[in-house]
Amino acid sequence: MVTRSADVLRDRVDKALHEWIHAARPSVASISPDLEPFVDALAAFVLDGGKRLRPAFCYWGYRAAVASAGPADDDDAVVRAAAALELVQASALMHDDVLDRSDIRRGAPSAHRRFTLAHQAAGWSGDAEKFGHAAAILLGDLALVWADAMLADSGVPNDALLRALPVWDAMRVEVMCGQYLDVVEQARGGGSVERSLRVARFKAAKYTVERPLHLGAAIAGGDGELLDGLSAYGLPLGEAFQLRDDVLGVYGDPQFTGKPAGDDLREGKRTVLVAYAIEHATEAQRATLHDRVGDPALDLDGVQQLRDIITETGAAGAVERLIEERAQAALAALEHTAMTDDARTELAALATLATRRIR
Amino acid sequence: MVTRSADVLRDRVDKALHEWIHAARPSVASISPDLEPFVDALAAFVLDGGKRLRPAFCYWGYRAAVASAGPADDDDAVVRAAAALELVQASALMHDDVLDRSDIRRGAPSAHRRFTLAHQAAGWSGDAEKFGHAAAILLGDLALVWADAMLADSGVPNDALLRALPVWDAMRVEVMCGQYLDVVEQARGGGSVERSLRVARFKAAKYTVERPLHLGAAIAGGDGELLDGLSAYGLPLGEAFQLRDDVLGVYGDPQFTGKPAGDDLREGKRTVLVAYAIEHATEAQRATLHDRVGDPALDLDGVQQLRDIITETGAAGAVERLIEERAQAALAALEHTAMTDDARTELAALATLATRRIR
Repeated sequence: MVTRSADVLRDRVDKALHEWIHAARPSVASISPDLEPFVDALAAFVLDGGKRLRPAFCYWGYRAAVASAGPADDDDAVVRAAAALELVQASALMHDDVLDRSDIRRGAPSAHRRFTLAHQAAGWSGDAEKFGHAAAILLGDLALVWADAMLADSGVPNDALLRALPVWDAMRVEVMCGQYLDVVEQARGGGSVERSLRVARFKAAKYTVERPLHLGAAIAGGDGELLDGLSAYGLPLGEAFQLRDDVLGVYGDPQFTGKPAGDDLREGKRTVLVAYAIEHATEAQRATLHDRVGDPALDLDGVQQLRDIITETGAAGAVERLIEERAQAALAALEHTAMTDDARTELAALATLATRRIR
Repeated sequence: MVTRSADVLRDRVDKALHEWIHAARPSVASISPDLEPFVDALAAFVLDGGKRLRPAFCYWGYRAAVASAGPADDDDAVVRAAAALELVQASALMHDDVLDRSDIRRGAPSAHRRFTLAHQAAGWSGDAEKFGHAAAILLGDLALVWADAMLADSGVPNDALLRALPVWDAMRVEVMCGQYLDVVEQARGGGSVERSLRVARFKAAKYTVERPLHLGAAIAGGDGELLDGLSAYGLPLGEAFQLRDDVLGVYGDPQFTGKPAGDDLREGKRTVLVAYAIEHATEAQRATLHDRVGDPALDLDGVQQLRDIITETGAAGAVERLIEERAQAALAALEHTAMTDDARTELAALATLATRRIR
């Protein structure tokens, strides 16, 4: 169930991003007209919708400590600080797509693919793919810096900003380390539910839920008890969110995911789902998983064969139970943490939004 | 001429980096033992020496406004803030090496190459080169975030930090945009002295000299007049620095550059030097430049042939004159700007260090 206020907040985040990017654009475009397509690609990427989950967790982490939305200007400043998380996420996604060589994102060419196509269309010299990767790496870097600038410019008071910075830095260190562990796990061939769960914790649970909540609470000046309560809600919820994402990466409908069917299988992602399947597979099933997970040539029949194996090993059911259990743990923590009623209601709704079966 | 105080400052910067990285390491390594080689690669990269030019410009930008070094604790805090620039630079270099597919940095395997070799040594599955690129992209991201954290933790007063952040953000936006323009210029085939000079201005002059000076001056609370004077010194000096780097990239001795002879030619960098040569080449020379600049198979004979052409077109002499003219302009600006005597002396020495012919 999505509340009306969740829609309102998403619109406010979109507006904040739109305004900030359009205010920042001229200072870059004035350096050279060659930079216009560069910043426009970033704007298109960031403004292309999305659930804006991370800003929502940040905003309600703030409101967990602050009973009323307060004066509009103050509240808008918090929304802008929260929206800056989307620029961090844009950076992570653009770099991730280069890492994975993913050509499709949200049903359209990914950032590096767009630049490769632009290189070809311009008839430039050299390797078009290498150009695409270079441009997307640099655009991801720019997004990461713009995120800092948007946070600093958000208008939250200086003392709030200074409290927010250590959380902001820790969050970004954790996601980058989590991403590296993910890459290592993939190279190692996976097969460990424990290690895959650790990747999910750092790459997703802390980054997507816990740290955004802490960021908002830090801006509000929330105390240690609130931070602990938000962790008790955010960590299991974040794991459930990542597990749902893993399920969608294998079984999801491309219409909803914006990615080709079974894309995680083709990319060879070593998710908890796949690790569980490997741990519980027969010898024949394990051989098939070993051969086909990570095969770039995997077609729809191949995807279906792997889906069937993953279901037969009990992995799909086990992961659904993990999602349910963690979502329940998150909701229980919410009940046991002292916070404003508004925040409790909205965070409960966000738990559903982040983990529900179909979207 | 390097002053003794330049050596002392470099040692203080090295020490600050060493202490900060070793204090930050456990929080990452505790996530997973798999992260130890990841952070160790960053530590090795950052602590591997270098001239520490950017921190020196930052420190003397501060001291231009602050007559005495003051209490040791306060001065150490400024050194730590200045040293954080080396983490930004580490990020830029690691990403740049992926962009250029440069396998050698400072006479040793570059970051992505190290991870590719580690992948092969571990006998992991999948594409070792893709793993190397992924790890180096993520390590560059981590370096960029650690730079923020080191600046925030430096111990400079909060008001100084808040003044520094907009400069810090602008600097990083400029270098990323300059890098992108460089990539575009290379794809386009180059040949424009004007466009290559613009790349040098944003990628190097502002990033390496002007903004570090401004960062220090902002920490000190320096006024607009000082910032303008530092720009008048820093921009021509920074261009001269980049032009010297371009000359070394073509004519430099690998013993000094840590890169193979003529590496910029093999990579096809569209420097002012190459652009000038293209503008002034005979038809036959231009055809050779077109065919061989950017040829990954370029051997020593090929490098020598291109060097001869670049010399014959007058490009080498013209660029030496540009370097001399800009270095002189920088020194003249120094004389006309009100600042402390200590800073004027050290900035004059840094101008020589950054642009001298042999190093």
